[in-house]
Amino acid sequence: MVVRVGINGFGTIGKRVADAVARQTDLRLVGVTKTRPSFEARTARQRGYPLYLTGDGKAEEFAAAGIPIAGTLSDLLGQVDVIVDCAPDKVGRENVRLYEAANVPAIFQGGEKADVAEVSFSALANYPRAKGKRRVRVVSCNTTGLARAASVLAPRYGIEHWEATIVRRAADPSETRKGPINGILPTFKLPSHHGPDVRTIFPDLPIATTAVVVPTTLMHVHVNHVRFARPPASTTELVDAFRASPRFHVFDEWEHVEGTPQVMEYARDRGQPRPDVMENVLWANGIKVEGGDAYFFQAIHQESIVVPENVDAIRAMFGLAPDAATSILRTDESLGIPRP
Amino acid sequence: MVVRVGINGFGTIGKRVADAVARQTDLRLVGVTKTRPSFEARTARQRGYPLYLTGDGKAEEFAAAGIPIAGTLSDLLGQVDVIVDCAPDKVGRENVRLYEAANVPAIFQGGEKADVAEVSFSALANYPRAKGKRRVRVVSCNTTGLARAASVLAPRYGIEHWEATIVRRAADPSETRKGPINGILPTFKLPSHHGPDVRTIFPDLPIATTAVVVPTTLMHVHVNHVRFARPPASTTELVDAFRASPRFHVFDEWEHVEGTPQVMEYARDRGQPRPDVMENVLWANGIKVEGGDAYFFQAIHQESIVVPENVDAIRAMFGLAPDAATSILRTDESLGIPRP
Amino acid sequence: MVVRVGINGFGTIGKRVADAVARQTDLRLVGVTKTRPSFEARTARQRGYPLYLTGDGKAEEFAAAGIPIAGTLSDLLGQVDVIVDCAPDKVGRENVRLYEAANVPAIFQGGEKADVAEVSFSALANYPRAKGKRRVRVVSCNTTGLARAASVLAPRYGIEHWEATIVRRAADPSETRKGPINGILPTFKLPSHHGPDVRTIFPDLPIATTAVVVPTTLMHVHVNHVRFARPPASTTELVDAFRASPRFHVFDEWEHVEGTPQVMEYARDRGQPRPDVMENVLWANGIKVEGGDAYFFQAIHQESIVVPENVDAIRAMFGLAPDAATSILRTDESLGIPRP
Amino acid sequence: MVVRVGINGFGTIGKRVADAVARQTDLRLVGVTKTRPSFEARTARQRGYPLYLTGDGKAEEFAAAGIPIAGTLSDLLGQVDVIVDCAPDKVGRENVRLYEAANVPAIFQGGEKADVAEVSFSALANYPRAKGKRRVRVVSCNTTGLARAASVLAPRYGIEHWEATIVRRAADPSETRKGPINGILPTFKLPSHHGPDVRTIFPDLPIATTAVVVPTTLMHVHVNHVRFARPPASTTELVDAFRASPRFHVFDEWEHVEGTPQVMEYARDRGQPRPDVMENVLWANGIKVEGGDAYFFQAIHQESIVVPENVDAIRAMFGLAPDAATSILRTDESLGIPRP
Repeated sequence: MVVRVGINGFGTIGKRVADAVARQTDLRLVGVTKTRPSFEARTARQRGYPLYLTGDGKAEEFAAAGIPIAGTLSDLLGQVDVIVDCAPDKVGRENVRLYEAANVPAIFQGGEKADVAEVSFSALANYPRAKGKRRVRVVSCNTTGLARAASVLAPRYGIEHWEATIVRRAADPSETRKGPINGILPTFKLPSHHGPDVRTIFPDLPIATTAVVVPTTLMHVHVNHVRFARPPASTTELVDAFRASPRFHVFDEWEHVEGTPQVMEYARDRGQPRPDVMENVLWANGIKVEGGDAYFFQAIHQESIVVPENVDAIRAMFGLAPDAATSILRTDESLGIPRP
Repeated sequence: MVVRVGINGFGTIGKRVADAVARQTDLRLVGVTKTRPSFEARTARQRGYPLYLTGDGKAEEFAAAGIPIAGTLSDLLGQVDVIVDCAPDKVGRENVRLYEAANVPAIFQGGEKADVAEVSFSALANYPRAKGKRRVRVVSCNTTGLARAASVLAPRYGIEHWEATIVRRAADPSETRKGPINGILPTFKLPSHHGPDVRTIFPDLPIATTAVVVPTTLMHVHVNHVRFARPPASTTELVDAFRASPRFHVFDEWEHVEGTPQVMEYARDRGQPRPDVMENVLWANGIKVEGGDAYFFQAIHQESIVVPENVDAIRAMFGLAPDAATSILRTDESLGIPRP
Repeated sequence: MVVRVGINGFGTIGKRVADAVARQTDLRLVGVTKTRPSFEARTARQRGYPLYLTGDGKAEEFAAAGIPIAGTLSDLLGQVDVIVDCAPDKVGRENVRLYEAANVPAIFQGGEKADVAEVSFSALANYPRAKGKRRVRVVSCNTTGLARAASVLAPRYGIEHWEATIVRRAADPSETRKGPINGILPTFKLPSHHGPDVRTIFPDLPIATTAVVVPTTLMHVHVNHVRFARPPASTTELVDAFRASPRFHVFDEWEHVEGTPQVMEYARDRGQPRPDVMENVLWANGIKVEGGDAYFFQAIHQESIVVPENVDAIRAMFGLAPDAATSILRTDESLGIPRP
Repeated sequence: MVVRVGINGFGTIGKRVADAVARQTDLRLVGVTKTRPSFEARTARQRGYPLYLTGDGKAEEFAAAGIPIAGTLSDLLGQVDVIVDCAPDKVGRENVRLYEAANVPAIFQGGEKADVAEVSFSALANYPRAKGKRRVRVVSCNTTGLARAASVLAPRYGIEHWEATIVRRAADPSETRKGPINGILPTFKLPSHHGPDVRTIFPDLPIATTAVVVPTTLMHVHVNHVRFARPPASTTELVDAFRASPRFHVFDEWEHVEGTPQVMEYARDRGQPRPDVMENVLWANGIKVEGGDAYFFQAIHQESIVVPENVDAIRAMFGLAPDAATSILRTDESLGIPRP
């Protein structure tokens, strides 16, 4: 069985999910949508992705730019088994009725509230729960990062308390109209929404989160302090636990990776067709076990971390793989994500 | 009695301490030191502060720039009752022997390790302990901010646990050679040195701190989560407790202060001769009491927050005020720091 | 005669013009307007400036914030001899009919097109032309900077050709929602609008301008290359010509002012109630005469450079000073702008 | 004939030149050098590039990191026909004697002064001049950008005068210790060194250049104003001239590429193993012909623009291609640089 996939929205997330879907043997990318011509529309065309109009997009504008259009979102919905909604935040919710009207199952992104879907999804944590669902929500980049870490820590060590400060990048690299240019902005919701959002996956997780926005475009950084019920015996044990999990990358101290700029440099050096880092990124010298407590930093590439999760979500909904591990392995190998 | 004060180093901190000393009626600014001519040396001259050579400074360079020099650091030490060391980090320790040789008591900054002095100082917390000491260390900007908050919280509510993430500005506004320009750098010491440093003032404080560096020049931001023994009854009570303390400024939500850029704008609007914010800055909508826990953000102006502390430290050493409250009142009124 | 002045808009420019007007003996600040409560409204109140509602401002919001309101813009217009429009770009034009209906002469800012007023104004260049006018436009920060430089250069040396690249700051320090955070944005109007705008003051000036936007908040920098008809004999002569003019500040090389960060540091050190730099800022080592050509950089503080120009514009309209030099002298002394 | 190539230095330029050499059929990458282990050393190893010690590098450090070392720079020099020096600025000059002692021809980068080599090189401009030379210098990123533009413009239209302002990125993306974070720094050499450097390729080019440094890491932007002897008939003609040249990319207005952030986004979307832009990047709406004058912006990716030039320089030295066009075609196809 090959599942036919449409992507509604070809922006930061949508273009990456499209590329990822196109690399799977059990999925077929039918088309992507766009509202206006841009360099990204040209990219879609060069990739050979059929382009459909969405929102208030105008065919004339694409015609003027010499970009052929294959139809509208409705046309696309008529040809797919599932639609991945990669519309801007809050627009996904408005799209629900379109998908329902076309009787097409849908995947939403974490910019939508949890109740847009029947289940919130993170592959390492709750892959089986998406099976047979018609509306699944892949949680946001920060929540994905926290949920993955919980998947490693909770079963092994038992979490008594988790404190996380989310240091958020203010804009994506190509969002030139967002600030601040110089300053730190507290997120005045206290505690922040990230804790409750992780609990859509791990219902009883005792996590308290706070957030600030800082003037960078590269990655988020989470500063974590966890108290364990059954703590690891040493820092080394905890480092190894992270290293043993798919979708984690742990730098060694001798690699001289001082922060997110070198993480992204590593991504560019890696030689993948997109310089993305879909793993949670940790530093061996940024992990510390002290008695029953542990501290660790993790960097999260907001543009790409949810991409493999979207692929797994499709497999989970349609039962394309026997279990989470098989799907994750298939996804990671196809996307060039290094395996443990 | 008027205490004669010299300032060794006329950089970010030194020039502010000099201005502050010059405004006190019980202190007299005898002179400041500099290693090379610069626009700041010109400022010193325009203020009428006698300028002395320090370090490897060369008289010829000042002569070429038309900046008169009154002597060397040795000459200055011969004329003062106390020297405030505002040399770059780690240089203060090297200066100890000079001050000892000249038999001049000294105040050091928080860039030096605690054992450079007999006591680490924060006016709200331990003013009396500096009395009669020959070497006092004013703790760093971040530690001062934490110690002040502890002075408000610990006696009233009892602190069972305090988690603080220090989001650090990467450089001061005029430090053009420091980065990063785009990125977040974790501080790999876990927990960070700030917790132990606060304990030089509050020996048993159960505080755990972590830190990241971000590309901004304006202020640090502390993200705090505290568990109390005897919690305040409401968020309002806690807001009022901060508001009732000297050296705290709490913005209201209607003031639309989104982050550190507007805090510094407020400083520029205030009309003081220096646009500094020597108070801990909080937001009423950035404080939240939840059961026995409280969350709060505070912004710390790294360039100026220790300035009133240096003035108080001199008074404390020489017994110039009957108690902390009197000294703090005198300092704050002279520096234009709004009173509760 | 004392001219009664109202300020419509209390933002970046308006608050500075208000402070400047309040310092003049021949002007009286009657009040300022605001649309919503904010920390800046509190500042106005602390300064004792009567506050009037403008735009869609709501009295209830100010009442809720405890900020007393003296009336509406209409009330203010009924009490003033002149209104200084400091509304956001393009809103000034919409305000014209209000001012006309109230029969109040008005000064506009450079964010409005030239035809909003009878004359575009720059004090050093065309002070007399504002006499008796009912609508005067103070040109924008960049145009003011260029017009001042033209006032120094054109009469002395004759300008055959002037090439200027405007390296623009992307946002003001407190504008936290503007980007880019990391990147350079060309201004695709070629040549840029600055050249024609300078020609509203110097009609035949052979100047060609281009512009880029860069991620900084402090100052603009102009990169200039001028060909003279009667060139200065030396770099020194040109440096001295700039130094001899009001509203120019020239740093010496030994001052180690590497760029705009140290210029703003100088402003903070200067001890004025606002850390502004209302002068064109040049560097002696950033000026170079080569044969008939000269190169020079100048930095322009976008927030404040037009402030003295607004004061002069009022004097010019109402004939409060016998000539430009007298008005400029009075303005500069009152605002603490160093004189040549 | 296959030319054996060594790369001395595996940093920003060196690692890219290594990747580029590895893709050529007439070149063979023998090895690269490094001074200390880092994530980049691991990348070299993963690529299978033999790693040699250079400078004060210590074998023990690599051993501790588990990175095998094939020998020292001397060993590498014994096995190659040419060495590409990618050492930090000024170190290349110190390396000359090593290369001479080993009797190995060398290519240097533009961070070295012109007299380090017999000829300064830019493929479009003076490919034949490198033939048989033992020391060739590939000019710097900015000079390469200007030389390429001159190669398009000078022969077609005759250049009477060229004014270029170089808006320089302050640091590369992974250089976390360089600033400024917020500010603009003029380059006080007037005119800047770029003009004379272009004249090492086009000896009589009447170009005057100036430069500023701005807080971004992505790309440089050149702001150009050229006066032609035989001007193009229209903006369209000039746009087409740039489009007809290898190593130029011209964005259309409908692509909504506002600045360097979207240019780099385009690079990431392109799907090459490195998200580089080795072409001069222009905008159709950022080119304007007005009478005998033209204005145009061009963005220069400092990390990669010289990479194809280094490959061509090897071919030119060793006569591996019959002419420049053949070498450029081969280089561009192998590196995925789109052809006109």
